[in-house]
Amino acid sequence: MQTPNPDPTPDDDESQSVARRIQRLSLHLTPIPSPLDDGHQIERVECAKAAAKLNVDTDSLSSYMRGKHREIQDRVLDYFNKRPDLQTPVEILKDDHRELCMRQLTALVRDAGIRPFRYVAEDPAKYFAILEAVGSVDMSLGIKMGVQYSLWGGSVLNLGTKKHKDKYFDGIDNLEYPGCFAMTELHHGSNVQGLQTMATFDPITDEFIINTPNDGAIKWWIGNAAVHGKFATVFAKLMLPTHDKRGVSDMGVHAFIVPIRDLNTHQTLPGIEINDCGHKIGLNGVDNGALRFRSVRIPRDNLLNRFGDVSRDGKYTSSLPSINKRFAATLGELVGGRVGLAYSSGSVLKIAGAIAIRYSLLRQQFGPPKQPEVSILDYQSQQHKLMPMLASTYAFHFATLHLVDKYSEMKKTHDEQLVADVHSLSAGLKAYVTSYTAKSLSICREACGGHGYAAVNRFGSLRNDHDIFQTFEGDNTVLLQQVAGDLLKQYQEKFQGGTLTVTWNYLRDSMNSYLSQPNPVTARWESEDHLRDSKFQLDAFRYRTSRLLQSVAIRLRKHSKTLGSFGAWNRCLNHLLTLAESHIESVILAKFIEAVQNCADASSRAALKLVCDLYALDRIWKDIGTYRNVDYVAPNKAKAIHKLTEYLSFRVRNIAGELVDAFDIPDYVTRAPIAMQSDAYSQYTQYVGF
Amino acid sequence: MQTPNPDPTPDDDESQSVARRIQRLSLHLTPIPSPLDDGHQIERVECAKAAAKLNVDTDSLSSYMRGKHREIQDRVLDYFNKRPDLQTPVEILKDDHRELCMRQLTALVRDAGIRPFRYVAEDPAKYFAILEAVGSVDMSLGIKMGVQYSLWGGSVLNLGTKKHKDKYFDGIDNLEYPGCFAMTELHHGSNVQGLQTMATFDPITDEFIINTPNDGAIKWWIGNAAVHGKFATVFAKLMLPTHDKRGVSDMGVHAFIVPIRDLNTHQTLPGIEINDCGHKIGLNGVDNGALRFRSVRIPRDNLLNRFGDVSRDGKYTSSLPSINKRFAATLGELVGGRVGLAYSSGSVLKIAGAIAIRYSLLRQQFGPPKQPEVSILDYQSQQHKLMPMLASTYAFHFATLHLVDKYSEMKKTHDEQLVADVHSLSAGLKAYVTSYTAKSLSICREACGGHGYAAVNRFGSLRNDHDIFQTFEGDNTVLLQQVAGDLLKQYQEKFQGGTLTVTWNYLRDSMNSYLSQPNPVTARWESEDHLRDSKFQLDAFRYRTSRLLQSVAIRLRKHSKTLGSFGAWNRCLNHLLTLAESHIESVILAKFIEAVQNCADASSRAALKLVCDLYALDRIWKDIGTYRNVDYVAPNKAKAIHKLTEYLSFRVRNIAGELVDAFDIPDYVTRAPIAMQSDAYSQYTQYVGF
Repeated sequence: MQTPNPDPTPDDDESQSVARRIQRLSLHLTPIPSPLDDGHQIERVECAKAAAKLNVDTDSLSSYMRGKHREIQDRVLDYFNKRPDLQTPVEILKDDHRELCMRQLTALVRDAGIRPFRYVAEDPAKYFAILEAVGSVDMSLGIKMGVQYSLWGGSVLNLGTKKHKDKYFDGIDNLEYPGCFAMTELHHGSNVQGLQTMATFDPITDEFIINTPNDGAIKWWIGNAAVHGKFATVFAKLMLPTHDKRGVSDMGVHAFIVPIRDLNTHQTLPGIEINDCGHKIGLNGVDNGALRFRSVRIPRDNLLNRFGDVSRDGKYTSSLPSINKRFAATLGELVGGRVGLAYSSGSVLKIAGAIAIRYSLLRQQFGPPKQPEVSILDYQSQQHKLMPMLASTYAFHFATLHLVDKYSEMKKTHDEQLVADVHSLSAGLKAYVTSYTAKSLSICREACGGHGYAAVNRFGSLRNDHDIFQTFEGDNTVLLQQVAGDLLKQYQEKFQGGTLTVTWNYLRDSMNSYLSQPNPVTARWESEDHLRDSKFQLDAFRYRTSRLLQSVAIRLRKHSKTLGSFGAWNRCLNHLLTLAESHIESVILAKFIEAVQNCADASSRAALKLVCDLYALDRIWKDIGTYRNVDYVAPNKAKAIHKLTEYLSFRVRNIAGELVDAFDIPDYVTRAPIAMQSDAYSQYTQYVGF
Repeated sequence: MQTPNPDPTPDDDESQSVARRIQRLSLHLTPIPSPLDDGHQIERVECAKAAAKLNVDTDSLSSYMRGKHREIQDRVLDYFNKRPDLQTPVEILKDDHRELCMRQLTALVRDAGIRPFRYVAEDPAKYFAILEAVGSVDMSLGIKMGVQYSLWGGSVLNLGTKKHKDKYFDGIDNLEYPGCFAMTELHHGSNVQGLQTMATFDPITDEFIINTPNDGAIKWWIGNAAVHGKFATVFAKLMLPTHDKRGVSDMGVHAFIVPIRDLNTHQTLPGIEINDCGHKIGLNGVDNGALRFRSVRIPRDNLLNRFGDVSRDGKYTSSLPSINKRFAATLGELVGGRVGLAYSSGSVLKIAGAIAIRYSLLRQQFGPPKQPEVSILDYQSQQHKLMPMLASTYAFHFATLHLVDKYSEMKKTHDEQLVADVHSLSAGLKAYVTSYTAKSLSICREACGGHGYAAVNRFGSLRNDHDIFQTFEGDNTVLLQQVAGDLLKQYQEKFQGGTLTVTWNYLRDSMNSYLSQPNPVTARWESEDHLRDSKFQLDAFRYRTSRLLQSVAIRLRKHSKTLGSFGAWNRCLNHLLTLAESHIESVILAKFIEAVQNCADASSRAALKLVCDLYALDRIWKDIGTYRNVDYVAPNKAKAIHKLTEYLSFRVRNIAGELVDAFDIPDYVTRAPIAMQSDAYSQYTQYVGF
């Protein structure tokens, strides 16, 4: 240890210059004058590094991580890598970006021969793999593709019937029919049942008349609408004439195909007013527009009539018995968007994490006296920022792959239980992962200091493009409420003897154990073996969820007596959101533990186990107040968890480079000069012109 | 309460449409079938709103909040409001933005007659007030102005002597001499003592020769360098020839005025290479450049020689005895930048909070059955996102005003203790406030959903421009370490009988009370009166800080024996950062409590007290694990704190409109259509073209 020396003489020699900062810091910082002599100055900060560094076989880990559809992803990435004319520059004006984005999509489909539309229904996992690759080229392109194939195309496939597929499939597939998904209105986003656009059936002409009754009902944020769209799937209340005094009956929200621009001239069609929603925080390659309809007539056939139909004489028929069931069925078909967002969000986190971690390994700043400066990833504070994030990235990887599998299975079997399961899981993972990634992108930028602020180093565009992932396809706060609602429904079923679904069946066990008090003996166990035991970790996660679930159920029951169900729900809202997050964390951890166990290669399994333990213990520590409050962990166990979390962060740091390499993202995808795998600084200086 | 009705018939009438969403939610959500009959359906969610709503006299509160220099701020804002040609459009290319920014600054100085430079030294509070106003016009302009007057100008004033002021004052003041502050290098940002640029004295020609010895030493991120700068204050190691075998002696980092472009032709001068750092995440109105020097000769007089000088014959003289003291004195003169950033960051938070809160009051979504939809600010989750943030905004307002006062006093008295005090306080507040604001900007965007993503609604540019506040003028993680170091130094002095400084003198008392165990009786007090007692709150904050301070001191002592001081510091780094944040929170709370007490108007005082209580209890709740772990609060007290925090959020929500109005920000400054004080939606639709 250095001798505190607040007043070195000015003649200290040149070789001491690296020691000066720590001396200067010591003016303020040297906390406790140490009795140690100079001999200790040469102790190395690196000594700790010698601690058990795992050997990671990156190739093996990487091939375990890779999705099934790596080959088509490589085709996408290779294609764009070879077309520099199609790469999005760091600075581009909105209108140019939109045209470039359309050119990128057209080239992908017509030149590279990647046809995503067929996979939307046939092989969703492959569709999401393409989406991930395309989104890493430019997220605007990913969203533009999603609007065309998943939203516009998906609404035709999933809400329409054979006549619609026959008529529109090819045009959508080959981009002759660019289209929109016109659901959101100026006044209604989350509350879709509050939409006000009307589609009134005219039995005389056998048409629907689409109307925007007021400015609040203007369709807003409609992707593909401002420039390229020829059609829109418009969500509107279906109004049928009646013979009673009301004259018209509201059958609830339905979807209609409305042509918005002339197929040949591209002129906006009569009765339709389209304005440009303008510049956004990100995703400016997507042309979001606002649509107002003034008595726009469409043929009766344009009703997407899978779940409800109108006959020539104006009679309504449906295989589903109620407005709510039809509405649920309609929205249920659209969960694919959430699956895609959860999956793509994890991919954004991989890219940002790779940049931040590679730069943190490269960057050196300060160091011990008479030693070279150290990598900033050697600082505990930097490990604290980035290592639990890296662990979460791995956790999300396995959880979202699982979601994709479930979704694919659901699209094949249409099993009712699976539909409910995927609905809740996609809502929860989309909300949880996108919120986490959004926060992490800011942390990555900050962790990379000034060079993280250069646009070329990507954090700005990643954050700005990703930001809206928290909102579209369902506001995260609303989605988490759906998860909480699902848990409560099952809690109720449990006490009515119903069957718990596959995903949440841990509730049965943990609810039972919850009803007894925490075990005062295990609450004191604090050995590393115990804390790194997956059973302890998963029990703790599930205990927390169960406890939150039971306590919120009691509170809801109490408050609903005086506040009504809406008021009670609102009074417990923060509690419900915490419950939902806690549950999703349990699901993520369970999937991660499975992935560790299923990994055949021993070195990869050891690395994954380390990362999984960090994920689990970091989360437990973040909510230690809850565990402490009920004495689920004793004070010393809490301290042991904290200490082990810091130690695991340090150990993960020692294999951080390998863990990032295992993502297998080519340099031409990360693109940030500061994250290049060779000569990062010189690529950066070259970029600037030196 | 509504009857759970999972299966309404399709003929439910139109008036029920508003009730449908809650019915649909009830499919999933209705948790516990309620025994209540239909009669309860009309219970209003608003019933809770009737609870004690404070009467706030906005004018009175506003005049208490306003700074002393409101008049000059109004002049700035009025001027730009009347010059639409000088307003920054939502979309603008980097190069155009830079030119516009220069035109804005020139117009401010030459046309509006605002001359900030004179206030940098004479009246810093007035300078910061101008900076705040200018930054709210366009943050690039604020930073451009800061580079010119506070950094380039400030370095001449504070590090130079009379000859420099005589020569440069007018040119800096009237913008004939735009200049740069060239400190940061490619390889060294935080570690300023690691800078490698060299200034070697040539006794033959009486000049310094400035050299960039390697690419890592290229001056990077230098504002005003890419386009407009004529001069730069260059920080470089002063190398003096010696007569011994080394031939040259490194005297440490000094500052030199280096002309970089010809005053008349604006050509880059010989030996200087300037490249453009390119597009940044934000602040693209500022032209950051990179500078490489190849044997650039400047006269000896260009050394800014206040703290160290070189005579004609190459002898070094200084009133300060060591390199470290000189370096500390040099950097000490630059803390004004941190003061300005802390202050401006609070101002950004005000604007973003005003937009998010006004929109949350306007926006309605969902509602109880058969009732109109409710404002989204009525949701507990939205209150949770925005109300503690509003409370922090008020807290930061008073804390940063206090910092400005201290700084102004310091510039007058140069009192040594005050210098140390302001150094630590500015580091801590800059780090804490800018980190908090950065996170909050993302929360505000997310809280405003899709419309928050429209560029015109400001969150994107506010976030992108503000982001780097966390990094420049001192990386936040490094600054917090300085605060922690200061606390440790004082902890040490305490035990050596030294005098504690004014700011932290609470440590003496609370350290003493810390050394005894928490009082088991007060640990159980949970009445609202007790929890809202400022003494309880401040004691809790200070107890936490004291505890963290003592425990980290013990850990540092322990680890330094094996790891050396650098290793021990690093091993405790997260702990040290928590200590620093905890301390800053204590200082902020103390200033807020003072501000409440000093407020003469009773209604304003009551409002401020409510907001202050929310600030305090929210912070205590956020770290409840620490308090619980040592039984500073009993489990039931912890619950009471949580419950009261939610209740105070609700009560603050009821006066949120008035609290935001009291910021007194004109609509032409907030600018976001969704935050307009009248007809927000129609201003938004008009913007889009309807």
